[in-house]
Amino acid sequence: MFYAQSGGVTPVINASACGVIETARKNRDRIGKVFAGRNGIIGALREELIDTGKESAKSIAQLRCTPAGAFGSCRYKLKSFTESRREYERLMEVFRAHNIRYFLYNGGGDSQDTANKFAQFSSQEGFPITCIGIPKTVDNDLPVTDNCPGFGSVAKYVAVSIKEAGLDVASMCESSTKVFVLEVMGRHAGWIAGAAGLAAEQEGDAPHIILFPEIPFAKDKFLRKVNSCVMKYGYCAIVVSEGAQYPDGTFLADAGSRDAFGHVQLGGVAPFLANLVKEATGYKYHWAVSDYLQRAARHIASATDVEQAYAMGQAAVEFALAGKNAVMPTIVRGKGKKYSWKVGEARLEDVANVEKTMPRNFISRDGFHITDAARDYFSPLIQGEDYPQYKNGIPQYARLKNELVARKLKAWKD
Amino acid sequence: MFYAQSGGVTPVINASACGVIETARKNRDRIGKVFAGRNGIIGALREELIDTGKESAKSIAQLRCTPAGAFGSCRYKLKSFTESRREYERLMEVFRAHNIRYFLYNGGGDSQDTANKFAQFSSQEGFPITCIGIPKTVDNDLPVTDNCPGFGSVAKYVAVSIKEAGLDVASMCESSTKVFVLEVMGRHAGWIAGAAGLAAEQEGDAPHIILFPEIPFAKDKFLRKVNSCVMKYGYCAIVVSEGAQYPDGTFLADAGSRDAFGHVQLGGVAPFLANLVKEATGYKYHWAVSDYLQRAARHIASATDVEQAYAMGQAAVEFALAGKNAVMPTIVRGKGKKYSWKVGEARLEDVANVEKTMPRNFISRDGFHITDAARDYFSPLIQGEDYPQYKNGIPQYARLKNELVARKLKAWKD
Repeated sequence: MFYAQSGGVTPVINASACGVIETARKNRDRIGKVFAGRNGIIGALREELIDTGKESAKSIAQLRCTPAGAFGSCRYKLKSFTESRREYERLMEVFRAHNIRYFLYNGGGDSQDTANKFAQFSSQEGFPITCIGIPKTVDNDLPVTDNCPGFGSVAKYVAVSIKEAGLDVASMCESSTKVFVLEVMGRHAGWIAGAAGLAAEQEGDAPHIILFPEIPFAKDKFLRKVNSCVMKYGYCAIVVSEGAQYPDGTFLADAGSRDAFGHVQLGGVAPFLANLVKEATGYKYHWAVSDYLQRAARHIASATDVEQAYAMGQAAVEFALAGKNAVMPTIVRGKGKKYSWKVGEARLEDVANVEKTMPRNFISRDGFHITDAARDYFSPLIQGEDYPQYKNGIPQYARLKNELVARKLKAWKD
Repeated sequence: MFYAQSGGVTPVINASACGVIETARKNRDRIGKVFAGRNGIIGALREELIDTGKESAKSIAQLRCTPAGAFGSCRYKLKSFTESRREYERLMEVFRAHNIRYFLYNGGGDSQDTANKFAQFSSQEGFPITCIGIPKTVDNDLPVTDNCPGFGSVAKYVAVSIKEAGLDVASMCESSTKVFVLEVMGRHAGWIAGAAGLAAEQEGDAPHIILFPEIPFAKDKFLRKVNSCVMKYGYCAIVVSEGAQYPDGTFLADAGSRDAFGHVQLGGVAPFLANLVKEATGYKYHWAVSDYLQRAARHIASATDVEQAYAMGQAAVEFALAGKNAVMPTIVRGKGKKYSWKVGEARLEDVANVEKTMPRNFISRDGFHITDAARDYFSPLIQGEDYPQYKNGIPQYARLKNELVARKLKAWKD
């Protein structure tokens, strides 16, 4: 079995890895070794296969509580067969050389697209391999699944953070800071920004304003709202999605560079917005950009999220053993009032390259906050605390050996 | 008794408030009511006195686990008697009207200066009042005391954050982000930045570079170090103090505005530095500015810090009852190898307006990291986790009534 992590990492992608490896180990008769790609799919291309069999049961168990990608992840997108044929063939060659019959790809929409294309290619070439996706993205923008592993923990981080920072600003606002802006991730989807709205448990609580990518930015309306919050509550706490944009689709803050998938590198909308407010109102401001801190914050992970991430890894192995192919386990929410969920199944072709954004009925009429429908959706996903172990005040995260298996093929030229 | 919070708030200043009020309640025979200044000393000037007697024992106990300033803080500095005579007289008038005989001021160096001046003024005017300071500052820059309540929790936050973000960058660096910059607070002192160094438990761990205000920034040396880290570890995680400065004393990032104390408002050195690296090396970067998040992060507070903050509040009341005046309780570190501490005492005049910066022997020879001496100093201060209670995934912080007592005097004109 070959397992690889892909794209931006999360506080719980290693919990999925833990689910994969522990479940595979329980089925040693049918799955011999589990290899992990060193730096994701790049590890397969370069024949850099980590032998997870060298890791102790304790180390593997510790993955459940370890943020980021323990085997390395990557931003590397395979194009169509015709454009990237050389890469598809290399993958097949490496998998064949190491007798790999299961390919588990842990990533977002782009990665599920890659897994799907590879499944098609292998089938076409008569190469017997099972391709299973494992959902992962803090952005929560995958279709079919109710939510994505990784999202719940980032949601919890941003809700806790704006609650705490909001109390800080409330303390200072009489004679100092009146406006605070927290920038959060989420790309083109406002899920993370929206989840921060959970911090507002009572009238007047932070955040007072949320700026979603789904709602075109209207400067004057925004400034009026800031002013009315300062008048009413003494201060204004704002959460802005990195993907907030003008009506013409331009991002409020575009750092100018592009990643390997051609996505714009975002960041810096918080200082931009803070300055905008300062110029228009004169209010003293502070701003924060939590960036990687939010998506690595295993110390404040959601217990629900950890559990679901593990279950997705486990289910992926079970799907593989059940003879399924080109599918991905999903999270299916129960219909009852009390939150429940179970494992479902999606075809990779239905998941690949579709971005699910916030539905309009999750956003308040004025466009600046979330509705009760959104609260009902978000709230269960951040429930429960799942703390890592600490030593000397520092969380103790897994340190793997990450030993590579011996190469059998010629070196790959990127 | 009158208690006021002053200056930038911390994750544990309310733990000191809890220590004050709980200890005063145990001595109800000698201390009748405890008033808290609404928005700090401004509350005394405006005769906006919160009657803490209206709060339940449960609410007061909850202050121990609540970040920020529950009664409101302020940035407001009293000048000398001659310059601010009107304000000193007003304080005396308000205290006299409400039969206030104890003034407890919970703040940093500027606030201890105010408390000291008021003690002198009252003595000169023959007004019988006891002035006791309670140390507080995340910057850890007060003299005499071994460390300052508030610092340990921020230290823990930044150490945990750079550990987690470092793992994230390590996962991504092969094909994406190679340089990560985290900006932290601390003003002219590198204590917070230095504490982040605790995250580096083994060779190669993040952070690889720390930029201290105490070490003049040398661009070329810095860029060479970034490069050598990327070559050696694949990535480079940097912690930069907001107070990092050029040899001539100019801050790397000066937002241009000043606060009520005339201090420069800092912020934005992380993106500045990230761009510098990008231009010189082309490496893909990410950066984070945690700003208020770090100093409000009660969810990851240090248990040692919480305990000490409470003890400082308790000791302040005990000092007052013991007839002391113009003093502040301090934290005195034991001499043994195993960390121990006890309550000490400092005269306010020795504390006021002195900034304690990092000693040179706490900073490595090359100026980019901390020494073992620094580790020995920092490590005990971040030990222990003291988690707040959660409901629906959100920490439950105290919500006080903050009822004002009836005014007896004419309104104050600012």
